[in-house]
This record gives sequence, structure tokens and C-alpha cells, in this order.
Amino acid sequence: MKAEYINPFLRSLANTFETMLGCTIERGTICLKKDQVAIFDISGIIGLSGKAIGTVVVSLSEEVALKATSAMLMCEATQIDEDVIDAVGEIANMVAGAAKAELEEYDMSVSLPNVITGKGHEVLFPSDVTPICVPFSSPWGPLTLEVGLAEVSEPVGSK
Amino acid sequence: MKAEYINPFLRSLANTFETMLGCTIERGTICLKKDQVAIFDISGIIGLSGKAIGTVVVSLSEEVALKATSAMLMCEATQIDEDVIDAVGEIANMVAGAAKAELEEYDMSVSLPNVITGKGHEVLFPSDVTPICVPFSSPWGPLTLEVGLAEVSEPVGSK
Repeated sequence: MKAEYINPFLRSLANTFETMLGCTIERGTICLKKDQVAIFDISGIIGLSGKAIGTVVVSLSEEVALKATSAMLMCEATQIDEDVIDAVGEIANMVAGAAKAELEEYDMSVSLPNVITGKGHEVLFPSDVTPICVPFSSPWGPLTLEVGLAEVSEPVGSK
Repeated sequence: MKAEYINPFLRSLANTFETMLGCTIERGTICLKKDQVAIFDISGIIGLSGKAIGTVVVSLSEEVALKATSAMLMCEATQIDEDVIDAVGEIANMVAGAAKAELEEYDMSVSLPNVITGKGHEVLFPSDVTPICVPFSSPWGPLTLEVGLAEVSEPVGSK
């Protein structure tokens, strides 16, 4: 994955938090994630496919997930429930959707968002894909964005 | 999601285990998964997008994951390592790939497979999607297939 492909995802995560949640997030240092560990407790994951295939993973601490849900729904979320699952999935969906629009040369479409919960869960990529991992800080706590993208030799699309 | 859409996935999981791994698996009772808990320790997950969007999740006990990897690589796998991650991802990829070919009216393409590890992890779907969950038994132990698919009003495809 070329490092510059991460930029649309960085922008769309910051925009999603700013415009949807009223929360300004700050980017840390981009790294190639070797040990591929989702550091936090709840991760939104969504697939991309087209002339490139890939995955976007947004991992949040429980605190960030609850605050983000509260901001999105305008009522306080106090525990991981269906509303929080839907909110975290929707964040992943918005991040992937806005980024794919910028990466139009790959003609990608997004799959259904899923949400992974469980302390110490890891979201791992195939060994031939090196995902790029970017930590962010926010007033609510830390979060990470992880994107793994692989170009395909011909469109996977219609079969 | 219409229940009959599950059949191509059931066939492709059984075929993948039979032809790739030399392992005959037996299907249990199909259920609509309400609590959406991935029962096992390692899950392969892959997205589908096109005129329907969705996710395929294949969850395996550690024992099944190790035996499947051993059969695929023809050398014994004894712990969850990169080979096992790749093997479980490849199983998810093959199941989704064969099933989408049968569901050609949805013109779907597959994303990159990811593998989730962590005891007690859960793979959750958006609340408006009810995934279908199918338990299987095998000589190596139990596994489950979970598929959530939602039709989209117009192709998600380009842009």
C-alpha cells in the first residue's frame, strides 16, 4: 500500500469527528503496523473492493465510543449497547465512504460495517498486506485508524 | 436478508473444507442470530459489495484453525501464528468468493479478508441487518458460518 493513499482516510476521519460529532481530533505519528494489534476495546471494520481491495478499521476506547455515540444521538450513552454498535459502525462507514470518493481511480465500493468488541481483540491482516496505523488523540480519549489496501491486477467487480 | 441467500455460502464452506482441507463438515440448524456472539476464538471476516452489501464471518475454535492450517500447508501448526492467520483469512476468502459467483445477480466483489483473534470477541452487525448463523461440526471440532447481507437500492459500485 502506498503511504499517500492513507491521506483521504485521515481527512475523512478528522472530518467525520469534526462535523458529525463536534469533536476535534489530533493526528499522531503514522506507522506501519507490524504487530497489528487493535489497542482498544471496540473496533468498527468495513471492507472496500474495486480496483483495490482493503479494509478500514477504526478502534476506539470505550470512553470514546460512548462519547461519540452520545454526540451522534444527542443523548447520553453509558454502556456498549446496540446504539453504540450502530454509531461505531456508522463512523467506519462514513470514513470509508468519504475516502473512497477521493480515491476514485480505484472505483471502490464499501461493504457492510461490522463492529468487533472484546478486550484484547486483534484485527489482523493477511501477511502480504502491511496496514498503515495512525493514532489520534481527542478530548474524549485516544483512537486509532488502520487501513490496509492492496491493488488488484484487474477489477474484482463483475463476475 | 432472504434465507435462501445463505445456501451458496453453506455450499461453499462445505466445499472449501472438503476439497481444500480434506475435511467433511456437517451442518447444524440455521438460526437468525440475535445475540450475534462469535462463539469461538478466531474469526475470518470478509466484506462483499455490489448490488447487495454484506459480510461473511467464519468462526473457528483454536483446534479447528490449527488443524485446517496444518491440512492446508501440509505441516503441523501448533499455535496461532501468521500461517494460521493467513489460512483462516483464505478460508473466508474462498467461501465468499465461491458464494458470490453463485449470486451473480448481485454483482458483488469481495474485500480483503481480516482475521479477528481474542477470547470472547464478538463480531456485531448493524441493528437493521439480521445475520444468519449456521453451526457446523467437523472431526476437528465445531465452527460457525455467519452471513449478513443487505440489498441496496442501487449499485454501490462506481463512485
